[in-house]
Amino acid sequence: MSLINANIVQPTAAMLVIGDEILSGRTQDTNTQFIAAKLTDIGINLVEVRVVSDLKEHIVSAVNSLRDRYNYVFTCGGIGPTHDDITADAIASAFGVGIDVREDAKRILGTNYSEGEAALNEARLRMARIPDTALLIHNPISKAPGFYLENVYVMAGVPSIFKAMVASVIPTLNVGPPLLSVSVKFLRPESEIAKSLEVIAANFSGGSIGSYPFNKDGIHGTNVVARHFDRISLKAVEKELKKLS
Amino acid sequence: MSLINANIVQPTAAMLVIGDEILSGRTQDTNTQFIAAKLTDIGINLVEVRVVSDLKEHIVSAVNSLRDRYNYVFTCGGIGPTHDDITADAIASAFGVGIDVREDAKRILGTNYSEGEAALNEARLRMARIPDTALLIHNPISKAPGFYLENVYVMAGVPSIFKAMVASVIPTLNVGPPLLSVSVKFLRPESEIAKSLEVIAANFSGGSIGSYPFNKDGIHGTNVVARHFDRISLKAVEKELKKLS
Repeated sequence: MSLINANIVQPTAAMLVIGDEILSGRTQDTNTQFIAAKLTDIGINLVEVRVVSDLKEHIVSAVNSLRDRYNYVFTCGGIGPTHDDITADAIASAFGVGIDVREDAKRILGTNYSEGEAALNEARLRMARIPDTALLIHNPISKAPGFYLENVYVMAGVPSIFKAMVASVIPTLNVGPPLLSVSVKFLRPESEIAKSLEVIAANFSGGSIGSYPFNKDGIHGTNVVARHFDRISLKAVEKELKKLS
Repeated sequence: MSLINANIVQPTAAMLVIGDEILSGRTQDTNTQFIAAKLTDIGINLVEVRVVSDLKEHIVSAVNSLRDRYNYVFTCGGIGPTHDDITADAIASAFGVGIDVREDAKRILGTNYSEGEAALNEARLRMARIPDTALLIHNPISKAPGFYLENVYVMAGVPSIFKAMVASVIPTLNVGPPLLSVSVKFLRPESEIAKSLEVIAANFSGGSIGSYPFNKDGIHGTNVVARHFDRISLKAVEKELKKLS
Protein backbone atom coordinates (compact mmCIF):
# COMPACT_ATOMS: atom_id res chain seq x y z
CA MET A 1 0.00 0.00 0.00
CA SER A 2 1.51 3.29 -0.99
CA LEU A 3 1.60 6.20 1.31
CA ILE A 4 -1.10 8.79 0.92
CA ASN A 5 -0.93 11.87 3.04
CA ALA A 6 -2.74 14.90 1.78
CA ASN A 7 -0.84 17.23 4.15
CA ILE A 8 2.61 16.40 2.88
CA VAL A 9 3.72 17.43 -0.55
CA GLN A 10 6.76 15.89 -2.14
CA PRO A 11 7.81 16.72 -5.70
CA THR A 12 7.25 13.75 -8.01
CA ALA A 13 9.68 12.22 -10.48
CA ALA A 14 10.03 9.64 -13.22
CA MET A 15 13.16 7.89 -14.45
CA LEU A 16 13.53 7.03 -18.14
CA VAL A 17 16.22 4.52 -19.07
CA ILE A 18 17.06 4.62 -22.77
CA GLY A 19 18.84 1.70 -24.39
CA ASP A 20 18.42 -1.48 -26.42
CA GLU A 21 21.08 -3.10 -24.25
CA ILE A 22 18.73 -3.08 -21.24
CA LEU A 23 15.75 -4.41 -23.23
CA SER A 24 17.82 -7.22 -24.77
CA GLY A 25 19.00 -8.34 -21.33
CA ARG A 26 22.63 -7.73 -22.26
CA THR A 27 23.09 -5.13 -19.51
CA GLN A 28 21.72 -4.94 -15.97
CA ASP A 29 20.43 -1.42 -15.29
CA THR A 30 21.78 -0.16 -11.97
CA ASN A 31 21.21 3.56 -12.53
CA THR A 32 17.57 3.32 -11.48
CA GLN A 33 18.34 1.93 -8.05
CA PHE A 34 21.05 4.55 -7.57
CA ILE A 35 18.85 7.55 -8.33
CA ALA A 36 15.84 5.99 -6.56
CA ALA A 37 17.77 5.81 -3.29
CA LYS A 38 19.07 9.38 -3.72
CA LEU A 39 15.61 10.77 -4.45
CA THR A 40 14.16 8.95 -1.44
CA ASP A 41 16.87 10.47 0.76
CA ILE A 42 16.23 14.03 -0.34
CA GLY A 43 12.42 13.94 -0.36
CA ILE A 44 11.43 13.47 -4.00
CA ASN A 45 8.86 10.78 -4.78
CA LEU A 46 9.97 8.52 -7.66
CA VAL A 47 6.58 7.45 -8.99
CA GLU A 48 7.43 5.65 -12.21
CA VAL A 49 10.30 4.17 -14.19
CA ARG A 50 10.29 3.35 -17.89
CA VAL A 51 12.81 1.67 -20.13
CA VAL A 52 12.56 2.28 -23.88
CA SER A 53 14.74 1.38 -26.86
CA ASP A 54 17.06 3.62 -28.89
CA LEU A 55 14.23 4.48 -31.25
CA LYS A 56 13.45 8.17 -31.64
CA GLU A 57 9.66 7.95 -31.58
CA HIS A 58 9.74 5.80 -28.44
CA ILE A 59 11.95 8.27 -26.61
CA VAL A 60 9.90 11.29 -27.72
CA SER A 61 6.64 9.68 -26.74
CA ALA A 62 7.90 8.56 -23.30
CA VAL A 63 9.49 11.95 -22.53
CA ASN A 64 6.36 13.87 -23.48
CA SER A 65 4.12 11.57 -21.51
CA LEU A 66 6.30 11.74 -18.38
CA ARG A 67 7.22 15.44 -18.37
CA ASP A 68 3.57 16.43 -18.31
CA ARG A 69 2.81 14.21 -15.34
CA TYR A 70 5.77 14.57 -13.00
CA ASN A 71 7.74 17.46 -11.55
CA TYR A 72 11.02 15.93 -12.68
CA VAL A 73 12.05 13.48 -15.38
CA PHE A 74 15.55 12.00 -15.29
CA THR A 75 16.89 10.11 -18.28
CA CYS A 76 20.01 8.04 -18.78
CA GLY A 77 21.60 6.64 -21.92
CA GLY A 78 22.17 7.59 -25.53
CA ILE A 79 24.27 10.77 -25.26
CA GLY A 80 27.61 9.35 -26.43
CA PRO A 81 29.51 9.92 -29.71
CA THR A 82 28.17 7.08 -31.88
CA HIS A 83 25.38 6.80 -34.47
CA ASP A 84 23.10 5.00 -31.99
CA ASP A 85 23.27 7.90 -29.50
CA ILE A 86 20.10 9.74 -30.44
CA THR A 87 18.77 10.93 -27.09
CA ALA A 88 19.73 14.61 -27.51
CA ASP A 89 17.99 14.77 -30.89
CA ALA A 90 14.93 13.00 -29.49
CA ILE A 91 14.72 15.46 -26.58
CA ALA A 92 14.95 18.41 -28.99
CA SER A 93 12.09 16.87 -30.99
CA ALA A 94 10.04 16.26 -27.85
CA PHE A 95 10.33 19.96 -26.96
CA GLY A 96 10.07 21.19 -30.54
CA VAL A 97 13.39 23.09 -30.37
CA GLY A 98 16.46 23.05 -32.60
CA ILE A 99 19.70 21.25 -31.87
CA ASP A 100 23.29 21.84 -32.93
CA VAL A 101 26.87 21.72 -31.69
CA ARG A 102 27.00 24.39 -29.02
CA GLU A 103 30.02 26.53 -28.22
CA ASP A 104 29.66 26.21 -24.43
CA ALA A 105 29.54 22.41 -24.62
CA LYS A 106 32.39 22.33 -27.13
CA ARG A 107 34.61 24.42 -24.88
CA ILE A 108 33.96 22.14 -21.90
CA LEU A 109 34.44 18.99 -23.94
CA GLY A 110 37.78 20.31 -25.21
CA THR A 111 39.13 20.37 -21.66
CA ASN A 112 39.04 16.55 -21.65
CA TYR A 113 41.84 16.33 -24.24
CA SER A 114 45.45 17.49 -24.08
CA GLU A 115 45.04 18.99 -27.58
CA GLY A 116 41.95 20.88 -26.43
CA GLU A 117 39.17 21.59 -28.92
CA ALA A 118 41.48 20.51 -31.76
CA ALA A 119 40.86 16.93 -30.56
CA LEU A 120 37.15 17.20 -31.30
CA ASN A 121 36.64 15.01 -34.33
CA GLU A 122 33.18 14.58 -35.85
CA ALA A 123 32.22 11.82 -33.40
CA ARG A 124 33.33 13.77 -30.32
CA LEU A 125 31.56 16.89 -31.56
CA ARG A 126 28.36 14.84 -31.48
CA MET A 127 28.65 15.00 -27.69
CA ALA A 128 28.49 18.81 -27.89
CA ARG A 129 25.13 18.71 -29.70
CA ILE A 130 22.75 20.29 -27.21
CA PRO A 131 19.11 21.30 -27.75
CA ASP A 132 18.51 25.07 -27.93
CA THR A 133 17.83 26.73 -24.55
CA ALA A 134 18.98 23.64 -22.59
CA LEU A 135 21.36 24.21 -19.70
CA LEU A 136 24.38 21.99 -19.20
CA ILE A 137 24.92 19.37 -16.49
CA HIS A 138 28.48 19.07 -15.20
CA ASN A 139 30.35 15.82 -15.89
CA PRO A 140 33.55 15.78 -13.84
CA ILE A 141 34.60 12.41 -15.28
CA SER A 142 34.73 12.66 -19.07
CA LYS A 143 33.59 16.30 -19.42
CA ALA A 144 30.91 15.57 -22.11
CA PRO A 145 28.02 17.42 -20.49
CA GLY A 146 24.49 16.29 -19.80
CA PHE A 147 21.78 18.91 -20.07
CA TYR A 148 18.35 19.86 -18.83
CA LEU A 149 15.41 21.49 -20.53
CA GLU A 150 12.59 22.63 -18.27
CA ASN A 151 11.99 19.62 -15.98
CA VAL A 152 13.80 16.98 -18.04
CA TYR A 153 17.36 16.06 -16.97
CA VAL A 154 19.34 14.17 -19.60
CA MET A 155 22.30 12.17 -18.32
CA ALA A 156 24.78 9.52 -19.43
CA GLY A 157 24.15 5.77 -19.23
CA VAL A 158 27.64 4.75 -18.07
CA PRO A 159 27.04 4.28 -14.33
CA SER A 160 30.11 6.18 -13.06
CA ILE A 161 29.21 9.20 -15.22
CA PHE A 162 25.50 8.94 -14.41
CA LYS A 163 26.32 9.00 -10.70
CA ALA A 164 28.57 12.04 -11.09
CA MET A 165 25.88 13.89 -13.06
CA VAL A 166 23.22 13.03 -10.47
CA ALA A 167 25.54 14.47 -7.82
CA SER A 168 25.76 17.69 -9.88
CA VAL A 169 21.98 17.90 -10.24
CA ILE A 170 20.74 16.93 -6.77
CA PRO A 171 21.61 20.22 -5.00
CA THR A 172 19.61 22.20 -7.58
CA LEU A 173 16.30 20.34 -7.14
CA ASN A 174 13.27 21.38 -5.13
CA VAL A 175 12.70 18.80 -2.45
CA GLY A 176 10.03 17.89 0.07
CA PRO A 177 10.26 16.30 3.50
CA PRO A 178 12.08 12.96 3.17
CA LEU A 179 10.02 9.83 3.63
CA LEU A 180 11.74 8.05 6.54
CA SER A 181 11.82 4.28 6.92
CA VAL A 182 12.72 1.52 9.35
CA SER A 183 13.20 -2.13 8.52
CA VAL A 184 12.43 -5.02 10.88
CA LYS A 185 13.54 -8.55 10.01
CA PHE A 186 11.37 -11.55 10.87
CA LEU A 187 12.63 -15.11 10.71
CA ARG A 188 9.11 -16.24 9.85
CA PRO A 189 7.28 -16.37 6.52
CA GLU A 190 4.99 -13.51 5.54
CA SER A 191 1.87 -15.64 5.88
CA GLU A 192 2.44 -16.04 9.65
CA ILE A 193 2.62 -12.32 10.39
CA ALA A 194 0.31 -11.02 7.65
CA LYS A 195 -2.77 -10.70 9.85
CA SER A 196 -0.97 -8.71 12.56
CA LEU A 197 0.78 -6.57 9.97
CA GLU A 198 -2.53 -5.69 8.39
CA VAL A 199 -3.88 -4.45 11.72
CA ILE A 200 -0.76 -2.40 12.41
CA ALA A 201 -0.83 -0.97 8.86
CA ALA A 202 -4.51 -0.03 9.13
CA ASN A 203 -3.77 1.98 12.28
CA PHE A 204 -0.58 3.54 10.95
CA SER A 205 -2.05 6.89 10.00
CA GLY A 206 -0.11 8.73 7.32
CA GLY A 207 2.35 5.87 6.93
CA SER A 208 2.76 2.67 4.94
CA ILE A 209 4.03 -0.82 5.68
CA GLY A 210 5.61 -3.06 3.05
CA SER A 211 6.39 -6.73 3.47
CA TYR A 212 9.24 -8.37 1.53
CA PRO A 213 9.81 -12.11 1.79
CA PHE A 214 13.29 -13.61 1.58
CA ASN A 215 14.73 -17.11 1.61
CA LYS A 216 18.20 -17.44 3.05
CA ASP A 217 19.98 -20.61 4.18
CA GLY A 218 16.65 -22.43 4.07
CA ILE A 219 14.92 -19.88 6.30
CA HIS A 220 11.77 -18.26 4.91
CA GLY A 221 11.87 -14.82 6.45
CA THR A 222 10.30 -11.42 5.95
CA ASN A 223 11.67 -7.91 5.92
CA VAL A 224 9.03 -5.45 6.97
CA VAL A 225 9.61 -1.82 6.00
CA ALA A 226 7.58 0.95 7.62
CA ARG A 227 7.60 4.41 6.04
CA HIS A 228 6.42 7.71 7.47
CA PHE A 229 7.33 11.38 7.27
CA ASP A 230 7.32 11.67 11.04
CA ARG A 231 10.13 10.15 13.07
CA ILE A 232 8.07 9.75 16.24
CA SER A 233 5.27 7.86 14.48
CA LEU A 234 7.91 5.68 12.87
CA LYS A 235 9.57 4.89 16.22
CA ALA A 236 6.17 3.92 17.63
CA VAL A 237 5.36 1.55 14.80
CA GLU A 238 8.85 0.05 14.94
CA LYS A 239 8.22 -0.84 18.58
CA GLU A 240 4.93 -2.53 17.64
CA LEU A 241 6.60 -4.47 14.85
CA LYS A 242 9.39 -5.65 17.10
CA LYS A 243 6.83 -7.12 19.49
CA LEU A 244 5.73 -9.41 16.65
CA SER A 245 9.18 -10.66 15.77
CA MET B 1 19.47 2.50 -33.61
CA SER B 2 16.82 -0.12 -33.27
CA LEU B 3 16.30 -2.74 -35.84
CA ILE B 4 13.51 -2.24 -38.30
CA ASN B 5 12.79 -5.01 -40.74
CA ALA B 6 9.39 -5.02 -42.30
CA ASN B 7 9.76 -8.64 -43.44
CA ILE B 8 10.34 -10.12 -40.00
CA VAL B 9 7.60 -10.20 -37.42
CA GLN B 10 8.39 -10.85 -33.81
CA PRO B 11 5.69 -10.73 -31.13
CA THR B 12 6.13 -7.68 -28.91
CA ALA B 13 6.17 -7.55 -25.11
CA ALA B 14 6.26 -5.23 -22.13
CA MET B 15 7.45 -5.96 -18.61
CA LEU B 16 5.71 -4.30 -15.65
CA VAL B 17 7.52 -4.38 -12.32
CA ILE B 18 5.21 -3.63 -9.40
CA GLY B 19 6.66 -2.54 -6.08
CA ASP B 20 7.46 0.40 -3.83
CA GLU B 21 10.70 -1.32 -2.85
CA ILE B 22 12.09 -0.82 -6.37
CA LEU B 23 11.01 2.83 -6.54
CA SER B 24 12.48 3.62 -3.13
CA GLY B 25 15.84 2.16 -4.14
CA ARG B 26 15.66 -0.43 -1.38
CA THR B 27 15.75 -3.35 -3.83
CA GLN B 28 17.62 -3.84 -7.10
CA ASP B 29 15.27 -5.26 -9.72
CA THR B 30 16.89 -8.23 -11.46
CA ASN B 31 13.74 -9.83 -12.88
CA THR B 32 13.73 -7.49 -15.88
CA GLN B 33 17.17 -8.52 -17.05
CA PHE B 34 16.29 -12.18 -16.57
CA ILE B 35 13.13 -12.11 -18.66
CA ALA B 36 14.67 -9.71 -21.19
CA ALA B 37 17.43 -12.21 -21.98
CA LYS B 38 14.93 -15.09 -22.20
CA LEU B 39 12.63 -13.19 -24.55
CA THR B 40 15.55 -12.21 -26.76
CA ASP B 41 16.59 -15.87 -26.96
CA ILE B 42 13.18 -17.12 -28.03
CA GLY B 43 12.32 -14.35 -30.50
CA ILE B 44 9.99 -12.00 -28.63
CA ASN B 45 10.77 -8.27 -28.80
CA LEU B 46 10.73 -6.64 -25.35
CA VAL B 47 9.80 -3.09 -26.33
CA GLU B 48 9.14 -1.40 -22.99
CA VAL B 49 9.58 -1.82 -19.25
CA ARG B 50 7.70 0.08 -16.57
CA VAL B 51 8.03 0.14 -12.80
CA VAL B 52 5.05 1.36 -10.77
CA SER B 53 4.24 1.48 -7.07
CA ASP B 54 1.86 -0.73 -5.05
CA LEU B 55 -0.99 1.67 -5.73
CA LYS B 56 -4.04 0.18 -7.38
CA GLU B 57 -4.77 2.96 -9.84
CA HIS B 58 -1.15 3.01 -11.02
CA ILE B 59 -1.17 -0.73 -11.67
CA VAL B 60 -4.54 -0.66 -13.45
CA SER B 61 -3.52 2.25 -15.64
CA ALA B 62 -0.16 0.72 -16.61
CA VAL B 63 -1.67 -2.72 -17.33
CA ASN B 64 -4.42 -1.28 -19.51
CA SER B 65 -2.02 0.94 -21.39
CA LEU B 66 0.45 -1.89 -22.05
CA ARG B 67 -1.94 -4.75 -22.84
CA ASP B 68 -3.48 -2.77 -25.68
CA ARG B 69 -0.13 -2.04 -27.25
CA TYR B 70 1.89 -5.23 -26.95
CA ASN B 71 1.26 -8.90 -27.69
CA TYR B 72 2.40 -9.89 -24.21
CA VAL B 73 2.60 -8.14 -20.85
CA PHE B 74 4.56 -9.76 -18.04
CA THR B 75 4.24 -8.47 -14.50
CA CYS B 76 6.14 -9.27 -11.32
CA GLY B 77 5.44 -8.37 -7.71
CA GLY B 78 2.52 -7.97 -5.35
CA ILE B 79 0.95 -11.45 -5.34
CA GLY B 80 1.99 -12.54 -1.83
CA PRO B 81 -0.12 -12.98 1.33
CA THR B 82 0.15 -9.52 2.92
CA HIS B 83 -2.04 -6.41 2.87
CA ASP B 84 0.31 -4.65 0.44
CA ASP B 85 -0.06 -7.44 -2.16
CA ILE B 86 -2.76 -5.94 -4.35
CA THR B 87 -1.71 -6.96 -7.85
CA ALA B 88 -4.37 -9.67 -8.33
CA ASP B 89 -7.14 -7.25 -7.35
CA ALA B 90 -5.70 -4.57 -9.62
CA ILE B 91 -5.57 -6.99 -12.57
CA ALA B 92 -9.20 -7.98 -11.97
CA SER B 93 -10.12 -4.27 -11.98
CA ALA B 94 -8.11 -3.65 -15.15
CA PHE B 95 -10.07 -6.40 -16.94
CA GLY B 96 -13.39 -5.59 -15.24
CA VAL B 97 -13.80 -9.12 -13.89
CA GLY B 98 -14.52 -10.44 -10.40
CA ILE B 99 -11.97 -11.96 -8.04
CA ASP B 100 -12.22 -14.43 -5.19
CA VAL B 101 -10.45 -17.38 -3.59
CA ARG B 102 -10.55 -20.08 -6.24
CA GLU B 103 -10.79 -23.81 -5.58
CA ASP B 104 -8.16 -24.77 -8.16
CA ALA B 105 -5.62 -22.36 -6.68
CA LYS B 106 -6.52 -23.39 -3.12
CA ARG B 107 -5.96 -27.06 -3.92
CA ILE B 108 -2.54 -26.37 -5.42
CA LEU B 109 -1.53 -24.04 -2.57
CA GLY B 110 -2.48 -26.72 -0.04
CA THR B 111 0.15 -29.06 -1.48
CA ASN B 112 2.83 -26.74 -0.09
CA TYR B 113 1.97 -27.60 3.53
CA SER B 114 2.11 -30.91 5.38
CA GLU B 115 -1.36 -30.19 6.81
CA GLY B 116 -2.70 -29.55 3.28
CA GLU B 117 -5.51 -27.07 2.78
CA ALA B 118 -6.05 -26.98 6.57
CA ALA B 119 -2.88 -24.87 6.73
CA LEU B 120 -4.47 -22.13 4.65
CA ASN B 121 -5.05 -19.31 7.11
CA GLU B 122 -6.59 -16.04 5.95
CA ALA B 123 -3.25 -14.66 4.79
CA ARG B 124 -2.32 -17.76 2.80
CA LEU B 125 -5.77 -17.88 1.25
CA ARG B 126 -5.06 -14.44 -0.14
CA MET B 127 -2.59 -16.15 -2.47
CA ALA B 128 -5.48 -18.22 -3.89
CA ARG B 129 -7.43 -15.10 -4.89
CA ILE B 130 -7.46 -15.31 -8.67
CA PRO B 131 -9.42 -13.12 -11.11
CA ASP B 132 -12.34 -14.87 -12.82
CA THR B 133 -11.45 -16.63 -16.10
CA ALA B 134 -7.70 -16.36 -15.43
CA LEU B 135 -5.62 -19.49 -15.95
CA LEU B 136 -2.96 -20.50 -13.42
CA ILE B 137 0.81 -20.35 -13.83
CA HIS B 138 2.74 -23.18 -12.22
CA ASN B 139 5.04 -22.30 -9.30
CA PRO B 140 7.20 -25.34 -8.50
CA ILE B 141 8.89 -23.53 -5.59
CA SER B 142 6.24 -22.35 -3.15
CA LYS B 143 3.15 -23.54 -5.05
CA ALA B 144 1.24 -20.23 -4.78
CA PRO B 145 0.31 -19.87 -8.46
CA GLY B 146 0.70 -16.96 -10.81
CA PHE B 147 -1.99 -16.49 -13.42
CA TYR B 148 -2.69 -15.09 -16.85
CA LEU B 149 -5.67 -13.34 -18.30
CA GLU B 150 -5.67 -12.89 -22.07
CA ASN B 151 -2.18 -11.53 -22.83
CA VAL B 152 -1.20 -10.45 -19.29
CA TYR B 153 1.02 -12.84 -17.27
CA VAL B 154 1.10 -12.11 -13.55
CA MET B 155 4.08 -13.51 -11.67
CA ALA B 156 5.82 -13.28 -8.30
CA GLY B 157 8.46 -10.68 -7.42
CA VAL B 158 10.80 -13.00 -5.47
CA PRO B 159 13.47 -13.70 -8.12
CA SER B 160 13.69 -17.48 -7.63
CA ILE B 161 9.92 -17.83 -7.98
CA PHE B 162 9.72 -15.35 -10.85
CA LYS B 163 12.33 -17.37 -12.74
CA ALA B 164 10.47 -20.62 -12.15
CA MET B 165 7.20 -19.06 -13.35
CA VAL B 166 8.87 -17.66 -16.46
CA ALA B 167 10.17 -21.15 -17.18
CA SER B 168 6.57 -22.44 -16.92
CA VAL B 169 5.28 -19.76 -19.26
CA ILE B 170 7.96 -19.61 -21.98
CA PRO B 171 7.00 -22.87 -23.78
CA THR B 172 3.41 -21.63 -24.19
CA LEU B 173 4.23 -18.35 -25.95
CA ASN B 174 4.10 -17.59 -29.66
CA VAL B 175 7.56 -16.65 -30.79
CA GLY B 176 9.23 -15.17 -33.84
CA PRO B 177 12.68 -15.69 -35.30
CA PRO B 178 15.26 -14.85 -32.64
CA LEU B 179 17.31 -11.71 -33.13
CA LEU B 180 20.90 -12.97 -33.20
CA SER B 181 23.85 -10.94 -31.99
CA VAL B 182 27.62 -10.84 -31.93
CA SER B 183 29.80 -8.71 -29.69
CA VAL B 184 33.21 -7.34 -30.63
CA LYS B 185 35.42 -5.71 -28.01
CA PHE B 186 37.59 -2.70 -28.86
CA LEU B 187 40.33 -1.42 -26.57
CA ARG B 188 39.69 2.07 -27.93
CA PRO B 189 37.14 4.71 -26.93
CA GLU B 190 33.89 5.00 -28.88
CA SER B 191 34.88 8.35 -30.36
CA GLU B 192 37.80 6.76 -32.27
CA ILE B 193 35.70 4.15 -34.02
CA ALA B 194 32.41 6.05 -34.27
CA LYS B 195 32.89 7.21 -37.86
CA SER B 196 33.71 3.72 -39.18
CA LEU B 197 30.89 2.18 -37.15
CA GLU B 198 28.42 4.61 -38.65
CA VAL B 199 29.43 3.58 -42.18
CA ILE B 200 29.18 -0.12 -41.32
CA ALA B 201 25.81 0.41 -39.62
CA ALA B 202 24.44 2.38 -42.59
CA ASN B 203 25.26 -0.54 -44.91
CA PHE B 204 24.05 -3.24 -42.51
CA SER B 205 20.68 -3.80 -44.15
CA GLY B 206 18.07 -5.26 -41.81
CA GLY B 207 20.44 -5.17 -38.85
CA SER B 208 21.49 -2.79 -36.09
CA ILE B 209 24.76 -1.90 -34.40
CA GLY B 210 24.99 -0.71 -30.81
CA SER B 211 28.08 0.75 -29.18
CA TYR B 212 28.64 0.46 -25.42
CA PRO B 213 31.61 2.16 -23.79
CA PHE B 214 33.37 0.67 -20.79
CA ASN B 215 36.22 1.72 -18.55
CA LYS B 216 38.27 -1.08 -17.07
CA ASP B 217 41.70 -0.86 -15.42
CA GLY B 218 42.13 2.61 -16.88
CA ILE B 219 41.35 1.49 -20.43
CA HIS B 220 38.51 3.27 -22.22
CA GLY B 221 37.11 0.55 -24.43
CA THR B 222 33.98 -0.16 -26.43
CA ASN B 223 31.80 -3.21 -26.83
CA VAL B 224 30.10 -3.20 -30.19
CA VAL B 225 27.04 -5.40 -30.55
CA ALA B 226 25.65 -6.22 -33.99
CA ARG B 227 22.15 -7.70 -34.25
CA HIS B 228 20.48 -9.35 -37.21
CA PHE B 229 17.96 -12.11 -37.86
CA ASP B 230 20.24 -13.68 -40.42
CA ARG B 231 23.34 -15.54 -39.30
CA ILE B 232 25.22 -15.04 -42.56
CA SER B 233 24.72 -11.26 -42.56
CA LEU B 234 25.86 -11.24 -38.94
CA LYS B 235 29.02 -13.21 -39.73
CA ALA B 236 29.83 -10.77 -42.52
CA VAL B 237 29.44 -7.70 -40.32
CA GLU B 238 31.45 -9.35 -37.54
CA LYS B 239 34.33 -9.74 -39.98
CA GLU B 240 34.11 -6.07 -40.92
CA LEU B 241 34.04 -5.03 -37.26
CA LYS B 242 37.06 -7.16 -36.43
CA LYS B 243 39.06 -5.38 -39.12
CA LEU B 244 38.54 -2.17 -37.14
CA SER B 245 39.68 -3.53 -33.81
